[in-house]
Amino acid sequence: MSTVRVGVVGAGNMGADHVRTLHRFVSGAEVAAVADTDEARAASAAALAPGARPTGDAHALIADPGVDAVVIASHDSTHAELAVAAVRAGKPVLCEKPLAPTTEECASVVRAEQRAGGGLISLGFMRRFDPAHAELKAALAAGACGTPLLLHCVSRGVSAAPGCTDASGVTGSAVHEFDTVPWLLDSPITEVSFHAARPSPAAAGLRDPKVMLLRTADGVLTTAETFLNAGYGYDIRCEVVGERGTLALTDPARLVTDADRTRSTGHPADWRPRFADAYRLELQAWTDAIGSGRAAPRGAAPLATALDGLTAAAVADAVLASMNDGGRTVAVRAPEV
Amino acid sequence: MSTVRVGVVGAGNMGADHVRTLHRFVSGAEVAAVADTDEARAASAAALAPGARPTGDAHALIADPGVDAVVIASHDSTHAELAVAAVRAGKPVLCEKPLAPTTEECASVVRAEQRAGGGLISLGFMRRFDPAHAELKAALAAGACGTPLLLHCVSRGVSAAPGCTDASGVTGSAVHEFDTVPWLLDSPITEVSFHAARPSPAAAGLRDPKVMLLRTADGVLTTAETFLNAGYGYDIRCEVVGERGTLALTDPARLVTDADRTRSTGHPADWRPRFADAYRLELQAWTDAIGSGRAAPRGAAPLATALDGLTAAAVADAVLASMNDGGRTVAVRAPEV
Amino acid sequence: MSTVRVGVVGAGNMGADHVRTLHRFVSGAEVAAVADTDEARAASAAALAPGARPTGDAHALIADPGVDAVVIASHDSTHAELAVAAVRAGKPVLCEKPLAPTTEECASVVRAEQRAGGGLISLGFMRRFDPAHAELKAALAAGACGTPLLLHCVSRGVSAAPGCTDASGVTGSAVHEFDTVPWLLDSPITEVSFHAARPSPAAAGLRDPKVMLLRTADGVLTTAETFLNAGYGYDIRCEVVGERGTLALTDPARLVTDADRTRSTGHPADWRPRFADAYRLELQAWTDAIGSGRAAPRGAAPLATALDGLTAAAVADAVLASMNDGGRTVAVRAPEV
Amino acid sequence: MSTVRVGVVGAGNMGADHVRTLHRFVSGAEVAAVADTDEARAASAAALAPGARPTGDAHALIADPGVDAVVIASHDSTHAELAVAAVRAGKPVLCEKPLAPTTEECASVVRAEQRAGGGLISLGFMRRFDPAHAELKAALAAGACGTPLLLHCVSRGVSAAPGCTDASGVTGSAVHEFDTVPWLLDSPITEVSFHAARPSPAAAGLRDPKVMLLRTADGVLTTAETFLNAGYGYDIRCEVVGERGTLALTDPARLVTDADRTRSTGHPADWRPRFADAYRLELQAWTDAIGSGRAAPRGAAPLATALDGLTAAAVADAVLASMNDGGRTVAVRAPEV
Repeated sequence: MSTVRVGVVGAGNMGADHVRTLHRFVSGAEVAAVADTDEARAASAAALAPGARPTGDAHALIADPGVDAVVIASHDSTHAELAVAAVRAGKPVLCEKPLAPTTEECASVVRAEQRAGGGLISLGFMRRFDPAHAELKAALAAGACGTPLLLHCVSRGVSAAPGCTDASGVTGSAVHEFDTVPWLLDSPITEVSFHAARPSPAAAGLRDPKVMLLRTADGVLTTAETFLNAGYGYDIRCEVVGERGTLALTDPARLVTDADRTRSTGHPADWRPRFADAYRLELQAWTDAIGSGRAAPRGAAPLATALDGLTAAAVADAVLASMNDGGRTVAVRAPEV
Repeated sequence: MSTVRVGVVGAGNMGADHVRTLHRFVSGAEVAAVADTDEARAASAAALAPGARPTGDAHALIADPGVDAVVIASHDSTHAELAVAAVRAGKPVLCEKPLAPTTEECASVVRAEQRAGGGLISLGFMRRFDPAHAELKAALAAGACGTPLLLHCVSRGVSAAPGCTDASGVTGSAVHEFDTVPWLLDSPITEVSFHAARPSPAAAGLRDPKVMLLRTADGVLTTAETFLNAGYGYDIRCEVVGERGTLALTDPARLVTDADRTRSTGHPADWRPRFADAYRLELQAWTDAIGSGRAAPRGAAPLATALDGLTAAAVADAVLASMNDGGRTVAVRAPEV
Repeated sequence: MSTVRVGVVGAGNMGADHVRTLHRFVSGAEVAAVADTDEARAASAAALAPGARPTGDAHALIADPGVDAVVIASHDSTHAELAVAAVRAGKPVLCEKPLAPTTEECASVVRAEQRAGGGLISLGFMRRFDPAHAELKAALAAGACGTPLLLHCVSRGVSAAPGCTDASGVTGSAVHEFDTVPWLLDSPITEVSFHAARPSPAAAGLRDPKVMLLRTADGVLTTAETFLNAGYGYDIRCEVVGERGTLALTDPARLVTDADRTRSTGHPADWRPRFADAYRLELQAWTDAIGSGRAAPRGAAPLATALDGLTAAAVADAVLASMNDGGRTVAVRAPEV
Repeated sequence: MSTVRVGVVGAGNMGADHVRTLHRFVSGAEVAAVADTDEARAASAAALAPGARPTGDAHALIADPGVDAVVIASHDSTHAELAVAAVRAGKPVLCEKPLAPTTEECASVVRAEQRAGGGLISLGFMRRFDPAHAELKAALAAGACGTPLLLHCVSRGVSAAPGCTDASGVTGSAVHEFDTVPWLLDSPITEVSFHAARPSPAAAGLRDPKVMLLRTADGVLTTAETFLNAGYGYDIRCEVVGERGTLALTDPARLVTDADRTRSTGHPADWRPRFADAYRLELQAWTDAIGSGRAAPRGAAPLATALDGLTAAAVADAVLASMNDGGRTVAVRAPEV
């Protein structure tokens, strides 16, 4: 099994985190290059992995013969173009979600991948690698709560990213639920509806928190809350209600403190501590799949594929349609690819 | 403050529980009589309170000059008629929920009470007296989570009562949520929609679990799950999501056990252990209000009134209308009284 | 069952609390009189129970023919004398712990009670009535963890009472453990040792927190921590380790709050919220025993007796002997009575 | 940074786990060889890391020029001899605890290491790398509970290893506490005492559970329970009681299940799931230290050293002395090295 030389495109928080994780914690991977339009940022991320070369040119990184595989962690709007470039170069890609902001763009990426022979793109739905989510899926599959009937999902963060809109909150953030729910249930989302809560004064005009009802083909109903400006912390919850009981994620805190008349555990400020293990295991699984001599991570479950990204984007489209049409129930339709 | 001589109508589980609680734990109350159409059952409940006289005739109990006040815990279908009889006799009533199965009947009871001068009927929405719910309301009012935006309520039981229908599940069981939510928020429910989960194989044809979306006048959205055949235990949850944080009920178990590879707490089999304190405090508040010389418990907050019962019934009607019309959003309309 | 007319001696926090609880929440009891050497304090506590007569003279209260039974909640140093006066008057007594600060005084009270025919004194070891402790004892008795082997008890408060000494911390506070442990195990404490932790800077010279090892006749070992100046809150814990598992009290908080990067539950500032139910149920059981026509609450388990108070005092003596002798193991010896 | 070629000695549960972890999850490490006196076992562990050579001869593995560094996970009785052989060969060693079963043997290893220039041996006190223990230490150092006063440690397992004695339970198992406590407090253990609980019927003659009192130089008292035959699961707890509050490890379970009248989380059957991350991070830190060009992991805190192993062994000796002398308090004395 040879070392996989990885090029990372995008050196913001997410990209830099991937550089550090690949370098420090992933067996069999080596960060060969880091690209960012801001070259100083590229240099500073590259410095996290001695030997990694910084560049301002993502396409040069993709073409670099010293790069075996590409991680895309640049702005959402660039994902599709970069992913297509990588598959044309015949290189495996791990692309951060979303695959693209629109379903049409997602579909064009999937088609480009198919023309290149398929199986080259993995999508960064890292919750599939979160040990807690993985245990939940395994317990569900083992019948621990009987037939699943109803899910309650909650995703809260401290504050929305700058420039966030109601649409990007759905396509770029709630999209996690649109992958997690069908992955947990092994059943696709077929219809959705959108329901605004009372908007938070802190949400500056956004419809936040949002409640979405998702119906999967198996008949299960999911209530999904996303609250980008929850203020108090980063908090991801999921409960599956089955015919004989329920399964739910626990509070992941490791320390409990008694002080000042309270017993408390801490909430992280963002996704990094919460999903550090998930990202590490995702990068490890992706590296293993490539390094094992397979041309691509095809079939390396539970890595999400480009098609999973397209499918989630189609759900996001339906949610936006419901949001813009008084909360009516909208059927999910993914374009032919 | 003189002793309040209480007559209890209905000697099933609920009535017998009230007899025992009044006798053993309520200061200033004495159970004078117990009525049930099944006289043996009346006798056996009366035996729980030495001195209480059993009878097969509820109307005789209401007319009895040795009865100062009446608790109604008979079948839902009899509540309205008995409550009206009691108010006509000028006696304070604590009526188990629902006030009546239909909004029209509820309205007629409210009108009868108004003709009798008002303020005679209290309704058994005992969650208002549950110390946990009371703390939740107090913390909310104190601004502990900022402006409330979204509520998540869950009510689960082991199995539906015999003869339960989708309609009675809403009017007789989910009705608790229809009172608790506006009471917590100090804002009436204005519109609702109904959403079936995948029906439980254990639910024998019922739409169970149910999800309801409730909108209050303040704009807050509530997701309310009721699952009558949850199987695993009796479990009541409520979380308020506010602009700065959340407030939620804890697991009320008092004991944690480590055994057989698990750490566990117990779930009660029904409402009795969960709400024993709530019923006791409700009966105490009702007794205090009557014994303090007020002709009626008028204004003895947080005792629910007949009007609260009518209001909750109108919400139930709207939920049933949504259930029978594909889950569309239905406005709540209470009849004029 | 006739109403029990109760006289309460001592109108500090504890006495006033008993007045309020008896008046508002205990079925079958009526507060007839309240005594305190500070007459204004007596009056203000009496005002909590309309009809109760304040007095500055505890002995007059005891002699009062309108008083059927006496609650003693005055200073620890007065318990013995007042309890003896009450039993000489033939009246049932509920005496706050400790029965007396020394074993010898406790023994003299027990002898006085025996001369009066016995069975008149109950001792306020209210933890026996705490629903959580009661569940723990019941689960233990039901074999839920197999044979008990080891106990871990923790009692923490915000700050020691003014004037507290190392000795009074043992005889007046840790004494709760000296009753709870043998009551839970149905086995007397036979030897003890004392082990100082690093003294808290907040403890102003006291040996606080303290660790005591208690050995019961059944061979079980108990580690008992008492920390009077724990600062963070009032917190009582108990875990029984058995051959097949463990049983422990849960956090009794009813509300969980997410805010400011933490998930938290509250700790009470003192014993009142934590043991409100225990005190209520203790007073109810005591009232029931007297009102049921028994001359005294003899045998009304789990009410603690004067002998239980003497037994606990003898354990406290042994702990003090160990504390004053380098932590050596000391056998418990109760005086003959 | 070059790849570190690791030889693993011992292919039982622990050794095989290290092989798998090094191969799959440790960046910069490669398993070059696996030795076990049982050659079939060596082969089967080597198969977990393609490319690793199995051998029946540990000394040949140590001498192998293709092995840069050695992990010792063979029987406790062989640790000292193998560690000495490795340091004589100038190779860094990660030795599973204990360094040796007796203090004298530990001291001789430390002396051998010093003669070789020092800094070559790391000891497998992996709890230092457990993210929960690391957070606890960090919070303590940050003053989150004020000055530490008292610790409560609990270590429970399902059943003792075959052949376990009271002595090996202390030197081979409780030894974890003898390292964790001084590491957390930055203060050495100076005196100890041993206190038997009632022996578990399941413990087949062992004094199990055991309670030890440990006093550190800073005056803090630790109560340490070890219960090898706890039956119910593998469960590690630690609470630090400070002047202003407490810090404690949480239940590490990731999933909560409602079923059969209980809410439950799972306990692992042994140390592997509980400390998988700790072992991985320990191996990563050790690999990083070696690969970074340092001849040895000297100073790569928090890796434990041979001296830490000797220090813990001296505490174990004192505990055994107390156990064999009626529980008297025994001072800890480490031999000069």
